[in-house]
Amino acid sequence: MSGLPTHVDIRDVSLRDGLQIEEPIPLSAKLDMLAAIAATGVREMEATAFVSPSKVPALADAAELAAELHNFPDIEFSALVASPNGAKRAIAAGLRSIEYVVSAADGHSRANVGRSTAEATALIPEIVAIAHDSDVTVEVIVATAWDCPFDGPTAPQRVLDVVAAATNDAVDRLAIADTIGTATPRRVTDLITLVRPLIGDTPLGAHFHNTRGAGLASAYAAVGAGVTRLDASVGGLGGCPFAPGASGNIATEDLVYLLRDSGIHTDVDLAAAIDAARVAQHAVGHGLPSALLRAGDRIPG
Amino acid sequence: MSGLPTHVDIRDVSLRDGLQIEEPIPLSAKLDMLAAIAATGVREMEATAFVSPSKVPALADAAELAAELHNFPDIEFSALVASPNGAKRAIAAGLRSIEYVVSAADGHSRANVGRSTAEATALIPEIVAIAHDSDVTVEVIVATAWDCPFDGPTAPQRVLDVVAAATNDAVDRLAIADTIGTATPRRVTDLITLVRPLIGDTPLGAHFHNTRGAGLASAYAAVGAGVTRLDASVGGLGGCPFAPGASGNIATEDLVYLLRDSGIHTDVDLAAAIDAARVAQHAVGHGLPSALLRAGDRIPG
Repeated sequence: MSGLPTHVDIRDVSLRDGLQIEEPIPLSAKLDMLAAIAATGVREMEATAFVSPSKVPALADAAELAAELHNFPDIEFSALVASPNGAKRAIAAGLRSIEYVVSAADGHSRANVGRSTAEATALIPEIVAIAHDSDVTVEVIVATAWDCPFDGPTAPQRVLDVVAAATNDAVDRLAIADTIGTATPRRVTDLITLVRPLIGDTPLGAHFHNTRGAGLASAYAAVGAGVTRLDASVGGLGGCPFAPGASGNIATEDLVYLLRDSGIHTDVDLAAAIDAARVAQHAVGHGLPSALLRAGDRIPG
Repeated sequence: MSGLPTHVDIRDVSLRDGLQIEEPIPLSAKLDMLAAIAATGVREMEATAFVSPSKVPALADAAELAAELHNFPDIEFSALVASPNGAKRAIAAGLRSIEYVVSAADGHSRANVGRSTAEATALIPEIVAIAHDSDVTVEVIVATAWDCPFDGPTAPQRVLDVVAAATNDAVDRLAIADTIGTATPRRVTDLITLVRPLIGDTPLGAHFHNTRGAGLASAYAAVGAGVTRLDASVGGLGGCPFAPGASGNIATEDLVYLLRDSGIHTDVDLAAAIDAARVAQHAVGHGLPSALLRAGDRIPG
């Protein structure tokens, strides 16, 4: 861990990854969350996904939500897509930034999108062309980068193959995702160290779940290894709502606390992030796993 | 983080720090926990504390519990003490290893033992003499090493003064404790880096709570900075039992998972630690915050 950056970009993914497996909530509740999250000062948010409404009913209102985003001109919103058609829908709805997910493990890739990793990778140029034709940026997110729920541990070379293809295809950003929350810091350092030489100046992000308690440790390791962008959700939204306390994404407020005390600036105000976690907890109607939501900052506000 | 050790010693503190603020449970329930924790293969356990029974009623059975420890000859048991008198009681009860706590912050020290940090530090030679006269080892634990609930951030020099005095007084081991769960990895690295040059070959441990979600990240940072001993409790016992989900000590099983996947050996079997966490959960009668207790190992057993 040879030196930490002075700034890390946090992308709040509460409205997409955080809500994806929750029971659907009304658009008005999402807009309440959006306003609270915007008030934290965060500069980037994953707003929704343009995927099959029957597969992800919680995000079936993607176009309606997208129509509200112009009210927050200071935030860069992105949407997740899983196909060229999804990319077209996102752009038609007004998104200026899309995320295309490729699972590095065949098992997860087939279960998720009905395509092998190689087939999903082969779609990157078409998606980049669709996006760049409209001056929209594309991030490729490599899912199941450490472990797959079907295939077990993911061979690093499978991740590197996707990364190399995406870099070659001129994507604007890359991210590595711990989709099922199994990563630990040394494995994170090892993989990021292999990824970095392949990507030139392409900004590199990472996405962790706190499922096995190591989400923040992994995020800190990632930052130490050269990642400058981290996904997080307020309250740690994104766990299974039917397993109380089961952790979802790393909590924005817990991450901001750790980074602040490590001398790493983010644009996110900690007290406002705790407030936003409360709004999210109210919106979904059950407790969230965030630590700061319970314990508060060590420094009185 | 210039190289990780190949082995870390875990001390399970479930029976002392884990139970300290719980409602008292019967000795038989403690012995069930002890047997389950012993079955994990852990080599060291903090069994109890010889302190005021009126202040810590959950540990009022210290002598009775100590009388059972001979049934586990492969485990090194320790007990926490706060005074020379406590040291004498622990040794009389048969303990071969004692921990003397000195709070680096005056506020916490006075609230906890009615003495300033300097006054508590000045007792180290007497406690070492009492212990060494009976061939008992002494560890000095520097509490509130990062923050104090009364005084705020602890000046590192206050920690270093206690460490230097304890080293000079020939204690057998040292540990640095994040008493209120506020530490984060960079602050951990920074403090351990200051401590290490002062202590020669004295083994150095660290003690973290997961109150603000950064317990494992801090533990991993400590190991990277030269700590070879970590405290943990099964299930993450040690939180406030009246705040569901509030985290206590870092959970043994979550720590073992992280260390194993980082190539760091411990003597603790992960599946057995999860079993022991279940026993502890049953013993205290409420849910515990451990992540592995919910999510399980990533590798099927």
